[in-house]
Amino acid sequence: MIGVIRVVTQEKAECERHGRLLESWFPEFSVISRCIPDQPEGVHDEASEAAAIPKIQKLAKEFEELGADGVILSCCGDPGLDLIRKELSVPLVGAGESTALMALRYGERVYTLGIIEDAPENYKKVLKERLIDNAVPDGVHCTLDLQGEKGWNAVCKKAKSLKENGADVIALACTGMASIGIAPKLEAVTGIPVLDPVMCEGLVMYMELLRKNFK
Amino acid sequence: MIGVIRVVTQEKAECERHGRLLESWFPEFSVISRCIPDQPEGVHDEASEAAAIPKIQKLAKEFEELGADGVILSCCGDPGLDLIRKELSVPLVGAGESTALMALRYGERVYTLGIIEDAPENYKKVLKERLIDNAVPDGVHCTLDLQGEKGWNAVCKKAKSLKENGADVIALACTGMASIGIAPKLEAVTGIPVLDPVMCEGLVMYMELLRKNFK
Repeated sequence: MIGVIRVVTQEKAECERHGRLLESWFPEFSVISRCIPDQPEGVHDEASEAAAIPKIQKLAKEFEELGADGVILSCCGDPGLDLIRKELSVPLVGAGESTALMALRYGERVYTLGIIEDAPENYKKVLKERLIDNAVPDGVHCTLDLQGEKGWNAVCKKAKSLKENGADVIALACTGMASIGIAPKLEAVTGIPVLDPVMCEGLVMYMELLRKNFK
Repeated sequence: MIGVIRVVTQEKAECERHGRLLESWFPEFSVISRCIPDQPEGVHDEASEAAAIPKIQKLAKEFEELGADGVILSCCGDPGLDLIRKELSVPLVGAGESTALMALRYGERVYTLGIIEDAPENYKKVLKERLIDNAVPDGVHCTLDLQGEKGWNAVCKKAKSLKENGADVIALACTGMASIGIAPKLEAVTGIPVLDPVMCEGLVMYMELLRKNFK
């Protein structure tokens, strides 16, 4: 069983969206999803990140106690990732570190497209000089703004401009963009690879589980 | 169906070894393996690489004609990879580029351990300044030398010395090391992650197929 932590407070069906995507892409996975309480706008600045970390820590521990084979922190900001990883006996995978890693396959000029002015720390750490720039779609301030036609169009427009600026790959930097399933559309409008964070976190978890069971 | 190209001329059972590993790790995969003719010592220097490339090209085309969903070039040297990729309509994945990529998850000081004095080109290209050094086990000149107790012990000894030199991850740089399944043993003797090239090529192919089918 894989535990998936959502850093936005949501109803059950929405909370389980990433888990269902993961189960469709990785039929070996059986996922249980939990979201942190009292953060309906998710993590989108320093204050909301600070508030989220102890809640994430608690959920990770609960998944470990439930016997999870691994825990996915399904947020591109990877809030508290290194800290919580040290405390867990099972693999912990973050969406941000995973998306940045897989983006390196697809180009030397990586642009991130997220909901925060600056690229999340782990994108900078992994991509180093290959991270050219970060962008935020116009009018988007938190993951909820991605929903609906207005959000969708704003993401498409910004992705096009990244391609025009010389991107050879776009690493999405908010898992809300995975929730709306926009990566293939962005590939169609830009003609370059666009990496879906939930797909990437799943791949890296798959690797962690293979390595763990490799005898 | 995934086509796997082996760059060493071998009997059927040995030729299919990587394919069987891939099928065990990725139950969605159905693999057909083919090896290049007339190179019983595989690819281990410039001359053997030059001889192999047109043969690999031919096998890749054959797999494409057979309807393969993707082709894996199961050699860490990635011989002819970029050239052949341009000619194919299906994803082509190399062991070298894949192992180097996944190694970036596990540390900043990556050492490669292979059969050639210098690290294969794609390890250098992907790892950049994170590739600290390359090593060859004593007495090993081609993939055949890895077989048997002498080869096994030489690889273990060299891996230990890489750890002592400051490696925080070892990226194996010959798929012959996957054939003998030595990665978990090396992790046990060194205490650091050791990446198996066949596992890594499989993961990257898995990603290629997910992206291709992602609608």
